[in-house]
Amino acid sequence: MNRLTSVTSPIKIKRALISVYDKNGIIDLAQELNTQGVEIFCSSGTKSALNGVGISAKDIQEITGEEPAFDGRVKTISFGIAAGLLYDRQSHAHQQEALRRNIVAIDLLVCNLYALDINNIDIGGVTLIRAGGKNFQGVAVLTDPSDYVPFISELQKNQGEISLETRKYLMRKAFNYTADYDSNIAMSLDENAGIHSLRYSFHNGEELRYGENPHQQAKFYHKTPSSPKIEVLFGTKELSYNNILDINAAKDLLFKLKYSQNTDEQKIIATIIKHGNPCGAAAAQGFQVFNDKQENQVIEVLRQAFSGDPVSAFGGILATNWPITLEIFKSIEKNFLEAIIAPSIDEMLLHYLSGLKSGHKNLRLIKYNEYNESDEYNEHNKHNHRKQEYEGKISAEGALLQAIPPLSKQKYYEDIRLVTGLANNGIVGNRVNINRDLVEFGLKIVSEAKSNAIVIVREQTGNFQMVGHGQGQTNRVTAVDNAIKMFTLKTNSENATSKKTTNANVVLISDGFFPFADNIEIAAEAGIKNIVQPGGSIRDQEVIAKCNQLGINMYFTGIRLFKH
Amino acid sequence: MNRLTSVTSPIKIKRALISVYDKNGIIDLAQELNTQGVEIFCSSGTKSALNGVGISAKDIQEITGEEPAFDGRVKTISFGIAAGLLYDRQSHAHQQEALRRNIVAIDLLVCNLYALDINNIDIGGVTLIRAGGKNFQGVAVLTDPSDYVPFISELQKNQGEISLETRKYLMRKAFNYTADYDSNIAMSLDENAGIHSLRYSFHNGEELRYGENPHQQAKFYHKTPSSPKIEVLFGTKELSYNNILDINAAKDLLFKLKYSQNTDEQKIIATIIKHGNPCGAAAAQGFQVFNDKQENQVIEVLRQAFSGDPVSAFGGILATNWPITLEIFKSIEKNFLEAIIAPSIDEMLLHYLSGLKSGHKNLRLIKYNEYNESDEYNEHNKHNHRKQEYEGKISAEGALLQAIPPLSKQKYYEDIRLVTGLANNGIVGNRVNINRDLVEFGLKIVSEAKSNAIVIVREQTGNFQMVGHGQGQTNRVTAVDNAIKMFTLKTNSENATSKKTTNANVVLISDGFFPFADNIEIAAEAGIKNIVQPGGSIRDQEVIAKCNQLGINMYFTGIRLFKH
Repeated sequence: MNRLTSVTSPIKIKRALISVYDKNGIIDLAQELNTQGVEIFCSSGTKSALNGVGISAKDIQEITGEEPAFDGRVKTISFGIAAGLLYDRQSHAHQQEALRRNIVAIDLLVCNLYALDINNIDIGGVTLIRAGGKNFQGVAVLTDPSDYVPFISELQKNQGEISLETRKYLMRKAFNYTADYDSNIAMSLDENAGIHSLRYSFHNGEELRYGENPHQQAKFYHKTPSSPKIEVLFGTKELSYNNILDINAAKDLLFKLKYSQNTDEQKIIATIIKHGNPCGAAAAQGFQVFNDKQENQVIEVLRQAFSGDPVSAFGGILATNWPITLEIFKSIEKNFLEAIIAPSIDEMLLHYLSGLKSGHKNLRLIKYNEYNESDEYNEHNKHNHRKQEYEGKISAEGALLQAIPPLSKQKYYEDIRLVTGLANNGIVGNRVNINRDLVEFGLKIVSEAKSNAIVIVREQTGNFQMVGHGQGQTNRVTAVDNAIKMFTLKTNSENATSKKTTNANVVLISDGFFPFADNIEIAAEAGIKNIVQPGGSIRDQEVIAKCNQLGINMYFTGIRLFKH
Repeated sequence: MNRLTSVTSPIKIKRALISVYDKNGIIDLAQELNTQGVEIFCSSGTKSALNGVGISAKDIQEITGEEPAFDGRVKTISFGIAAGLLYDRQSHAHQQEALRRNIVAIDLLVCNLYALDINNIDIGGVTLIRAGGKNFQGVAVLTDPSDYVPFISELQKNQGEISLETRKYLMRKAFNYTADYDSNIAMSLDENAGIHSLRYSFHNGEELRYGENPHQQAKFYHKTPSSPKIEVLFGTKELSYNNILDINAAKDLLFKLKYSQNTDEQKIIATIIKHGNPCGAAAAQGFQVFNDKQENQVIEVLRQAFSGDPVSAFGGILATNWPITLEIFKSIEKNFLEAIIAPSIDEMLLHYLSGLKSGHKNLRLIKYNEYNESDEYNEHNKHNHRKQEYEGKISAEGALLQAIPPLSKQKYYEDIRLVTGLANNGIVGNRVNINRDLVEFGLKIVSEAKSNAIVIVREQTGNFQMVGHGQGQTNRVTAVDNAIKMFTLKTNSENATSKKTTNANVVLISDGFFPFADNIEIAAEAGIKNIVQPGGSIRDQEVIAKCNQLGINMYFTGIRLFKH
C-alpha cells in the first residue's frame, strides 16, 4: 500500500464511538450509521437514548473492559479506547500490534461535553476528542451537532466514506472546542481565586491592505467562527485598517441613531466618518416602504450629512440604513468616498458602476448586516460562555477593556434638565421647550466623537443635521472653537444665500462638563442659544451664571460621554 | 472522618507520578521526594534520567499494566492511572472501590508537555494534568518547573504535606497551561487551513475606578500572569480607564523618545498626555549620574514640557525617565495633574506628600518598569508561543489588530529629504541643514497623536520642546490651524517679554501628506520656516511650489504616521 496515497484517501466508517451530553440530532445520525452497517459503541446515557428508539448499540465497556468506576469519574478513559483512536492505520507495525493487543479501530468519534461546571470538569470526553482529533488521518470527530447533517450527506454520497478534507475540518473544530472549554475553565478558576483573567478568541481574520500606515500589517478578526466576512459588493481595492475602523464607526453611529430608547419608528439616517470621528450626520423620519417619495427624502438626508462639513467628508466613509439606488448614488457621486455601506445596493447601481471606464476606482460598496441584539448575544454566549461584551484597546502593555451594554441599554442622559433661568442673575434664558429627539441625536453623535468633543446640531425642515463639530482636543475651549468656526462658516454661507439660518433650533452639545465659562462666551458670540452638557464641574454655577447673563439656555444631562 | 474538615486539610504526598519533557529541576525535586519516602512512578524517559543519578523510581507500567504502545502513542492513558488521579479520597465508597479494583492513589503529578508540534500533539500528558487538576482535593499537580522550589520548601516545612491553598494554585496553573496548549493548537490548525484566528489571554486584571465614563465598568489586564500590577507609590484615588490610557500613552511616548535608532546617550525626557494625545513634550541631553546639576536640568525640561501648552496640561498625566525628587516636584507642584510616572520617587517627596493636610488629594505617583525589549519578547513568546506583538481595538464587531515591531525596529522616516529649493520657481528655501534629532523628536510625538495631527517643535538652549499641536481632526487644515494658533500664542507672549523667539529652529511636522497648499499658507503666515511631512499626495508639486514661493524648507520622510 502506498502510504502517501492512502493518507490523502477517504476513510470508511466501520466503527463509531458515541458519548454525547447534547443529544440533539443524535438519533438521526445513529440511524444513518446503523443503515450504513456501522458498529456503534456508546456510553451508558447515550446507549439508553438509542436503544429507546430501537437503534442497536453496544456498551463501551466491551472496549474498556471496565465497568464505569467511581460514580462515573472514570468511564471512557482506558487503554483500549485510547489505542483504538490513536494507532496509525497506515502503519503495518501498528496494524500487527493492534491485532496482537486486541485493539479495535474507532473510525468515528461523536462526542460533546456537558455544559461547563467548574465543579464537574469533563476529563474523559476531552481525552476522546483530543485523541480522535490528533489521529484525523484515521478518525473523524464530530463535536458539533450542526455538522451531523452534512456528515450524513457525505456518508450517503460516498458509500460510507469520509474525505480527508472533512476530517481535517472536524479536527480543527475539535481543538477549537477543547481550547474554548479549557479557556473557560481557566478563567473561572482564576475568577474564583480573585484573579481577573480573560481569554479571548477572534476568528475569520481578514488580511487588510495595510495597517494604520502602509508599512504596518493588519487583520480584522470576527467575533465568532460563524461571523460572515465583510461583504464588498463593488470595488476591488482592499480595505485597510483605517477603512475598517471607519466602517465600524459609521455603522456604530448609524445603529445608535437608529435604535432609540423612546421610539420604534423607521428613520432615514446617514453618517460620515473620517479618522474615526463623525464629520457628517443627518436623520429624517422615514416610512415603512421604500418608494419614489422616499428616494427623494434619502437624497435630502445625504445632502444634509455632506453639507455639515464638506471639507472633512472628502475621503470619508458613508453609512446609511436605506437601500442605495442609482438615483441616490448619483446625488452624491461628486463626493470622493472610500466606501459606502448600506443594507442593500440596487442592481442597477452595480451595473452602472461596472460599466464605467474610469471613475470610482477606489470606492467600495459594502452590505452590512442588521444589528440584531438578541441573536448577537446568544450566538456569542453559546460560543464563549460569557455574558458580557467588551470594547477597548490592546497594546504591548496588555488590554484596557470596558463593558459595553447592548444598544437598547445604552444611556446618553439621565434627564435633560434646564439649569438656566432659575436664578435671578442677569438676563434669563428663553426656557424654550427643547426638542429632546434632537438632543438625543446630538448626544449619540458626540458619544462617538473622540474627547474632548463638541457637536452642534439643528433641526431644519423636520430633519436633524450636524452643523459643527470639534473633537480630539486636549482642552475643551479648542473643541468649542473648532465646532463654532465650522458652524459660523456654514451659517454665513447660508445667510449669504436665500436660506437664512435660525439659531432657535440649534443646540451645542458637549461630551464633558465645561470647566470654565470662557467656552460659553465663544458660543454666545456665534449666536448659540441652547447648550447641553453633563454638568458636574466645581464651576457649574459660574458657567450657568454666564449662560444667564448671555441669554443661553443650558441643560444638564447627568451622563458624561467620553470616548478615546 | 469529617468530610468538610478533611477537604480543607493538607494532603500527605505518598505517591508521585512524574512524566516531564522539560527536565529542569526534576532531579532536585525527585531527590526530595525520595528523602520524604515518596513512591515515584515515571514514564520511561524520566525514569532513565532519575535512575542515572541514583534515584529509585518505578515504571508507570506497574500501574497501567501495559507496555508503551504504538510507538509511544499510548503510554500513560489507562484506567489505572486515571482512576488513581480521579477517585475521591474523602469518599468511603470510593476508597472501598479503589481497594477492590486495585487502584493506587496518586497524590502528586509532575507533568509538562513537549514543545508544541502540531504533528505530534500531546494527548496523554494533557489527560494526566487535567485529571490531576480536577481532583485537586486529593492531588497536587506541578506543571511549571519554577514551582518546584517553593513546593519542596512546603514539603520540608510541613512534614511532606501540601496545603489546599497550594493545590488550588497549582490547579489554576494546570488549566491555564492546558488552555494555552490547546489554544495554540487551534490557532495553528486554523492557520494551516488558511483561516486566521487569534486566541489571546490577558491576566491580572486590575479593577478600575470606572471606564471612559463613570457609568461604565472597566479593567486593565496584563499580558502575562507574571506581569506586575501598576505600582502606585502615592495616592489613594483609584485609577480610571482614561488614567491608564494616558499612563500608557505617556510611557509609550517616553520610551519612543528615549530609544533612538541613532544614539545611545542618556536623555532627560518629559511627556504630558491628555485624552490620549501628547500635549507637552521636552527633551535634553542628560548625564549618566543623577546629581544636583542634573536636577536643575530636569526642572528645566519639565518647565518646557508644561510651557508648551499649559492650558491642556491641566489634569494631565506626566511621565519622565528621571527620578522625581522633592525639589523637582516643587517646581511643578502648582500644576494640577492626575498622575506622575517615573522610574523612581524620592523618599523625601513621599514623606512630604504624606505630611500634607490637604492638597494633591487626587494625585498619584507611579513607578514604571524600564522597557526591556528582549526580556519582554522572550517572556511573551515563552508563554504564548507567538512571535508577534499586536495593538488595536476590540469591539462588539471583533478585533482590529496590527503588528507592532519592538521599539528598536520602529521607523519614523525613510530619509529626511529636502524637496524645496530644487526647482526654479519663486523664492527658494534656505536649504539649512535641518537638525535631524529635532525632526525625529517631532516625528515620534506626532506618531503618538491622533490623526490628522500636526506638531510644532523647536530647539532652544540645546533642548527640544513641543510648542504647538493640533490633532484628532477630520481635515488637515484644522489640525494646522490649531497647532499654529497655539504656537502663535506662545511666541507672542515670549516676544512680549525679553525672550525673543527665533523661528529658524522651529519645525512643523505632519503625520500625513498635505492634500492642498492652503495648509502651507497658514504656516507661512505664522513665520514657520521648516515643514516635515511624508509626501505622497497627487498635489505634492503644488505644495512644494507654494513652499518655494513662501520661502519655506520642506522635507519629505517617506513614512506616514497615522494613529487612531
